[in-house]
Amino acid sequence: MHVSELQQALRDFSAEREWQRFNTPRNLALALVGEVGEVAELLQWLTEEEAAAVATAADGEAARLRERAGEEVSDVLAYLLLLADSLGVDVERAFTAKLAANAEKYPVHLARGSAAKHTEL
Amino acid sequence: MHVSELQQALRDFSAEREWQRFNTPRNLALALVGEVGEVAELLQWLTEEEAAAVATAADGEAARLRERAGEEVSDVLAYLLLLADSLGVDVERAFTAKLAANAEKYPVHLARGSAAKHTEL
Amino acid sequence: MHVSELQQALRDFSAEREWQRFNTPRNLALALVGEVGEVAELLQWLTEEEAAAVATAADGEAARLRERAGEEVSDVLAYLLLLADSLGVDVERAFTAKLAANAEKYPVHLARGSAAKHTEL
Amino acid sequence: MHVSELQQALRDFSAEREWQRFNTPRNLALALVGEVGEVAELLQWLTEEEAAAVATAADGEAARLRERAGEEVSDVLAYLLLLADSLGVDVERAFTAKLAANAEKYPVHLARGSAAKHTEL
Repeated sequence: MHVSELQQALRDFSAEREWQRFNTPRNLALALVGEVGEVAELLQWLTEEEAAAVATAADGEAARLRERAGEEVSDVLAYLLLLADSLGVDVERAFTAKLAANAEKYPVHLARGSAAKHTEL
Repeated sequence: MHVSELQQALRDFSAEREWQRFNTPRNLALALVGEVGEVAELLQWLTEEEAAAVATAADGEAARLRERAGEEVSDVLAYLLLLADSLGVDVERAFTAKLAANAEKYPVHLARGSAAKHTEL
Repeated sequence: MHVSELQQALRDFSAEREWQRFNTPRNLALALVGEVGEVAELLQWLTEEEAAAVATAADGEAARLRERAGEEVSDVLAYLLLLADSLGVDVERAFTAKLAANAEKYPVHLARGSAAKHTEL
Repeated sequence: MHVSELQQALRDFSAEREWQRFNTPRNLALALVGEVGEVAELLQWLTEEEAAAVATAADGEAARLRERAGEEVSDVLAYLLLLADSLGVDVERAFTAKLAANAEKYPVHLARGSAAKHTEL
């Protein structure tokens, strides 16, 4: 799916419920924080090994965590896209520009394998 | 752009710099929080009116804020997509499923215009 | 109560339950984020006027919000103090030093009433 | 220091600069998120071992991180206490009540050493 399709689905969802007036930048920023908090809660008591296993483990606990992670990631994404809308941000354009800026900021030959360089993205 | 293209661009970016080993769920969750913090900082002292004007205002201050908002939204999106990868989450599938679940949870005829119903998404 | 009494109460609480091994910096940082998310959720759909009324309004809804705000603030405070412990931070000393540094950074005669200067604290 | 002394110092700091009108619940919640983001940034690329070493290690890097952690914890604490003020929350009373509620929720004989029980505080 295109990012713009996701955004349109969210706009339609809000419009059908007449919720557009709630979609202000500060409301959505706080809602975004609420959902990021739920992502953090999922991971807060996991060891690094347990967290790494979520992606692939076949046992029920990992599958349940993967399912919940999908829900929380979706909630964060939804509020992030609505927030971008509320601030007049063209997500695809901004994303492409930021990635290009980061490629310049962290040249491959200098950044390779270095945690020190890996301060962003 | 497809969501999967954004994800591929991020994977390539990390791979070129040999940064994949930093992309663990808990590292990325904390990095996500750092970027959400920057979104919050942009909006923290704005009035509701000032925040609403960011999307459309033609003056320099609003344009500068819109630009910075685009950068911060992009950083949040980048870490969110990398986090999804690290947790084995299929973003498009999860997003579609969550939106369908929310449509059922908030039926149009009950939710219309109601802040009380608008507790999520 | 002294800050150190709050900290001791938290240490005792953890020790009695043999939870000290969970109190690592990154676990506690993620737990802090989870609780901050709950604070954000409380406020996300409130207008500025509704939020301002929470502190003093006598009606049931405001009293209920004040009660919940007290719980969430307490949770944030608890994880923050445990996090400080886990990082070897002396909270009182650090707080006093930071306030002094901010007093120097924002001199009264320059900062007075200015949103622009009010970027921190 | 008493928690109330910290709060009074913050109130005085704001009053001297005529910043009280900025200290609304939603402004302060967003500012709190900004500072929590800086705490997260400090820890985002550290291994568990590196993070554990911050508290006690004598080398320069750990000392520098401890210093910065102290600053960020102080900023979070400052905004948290101002937020409590703005919401009419009595921090000491709320904290004591929440700790008592948690003691009841997680009885020592059931919670001992169990990550599963350690879902909050």
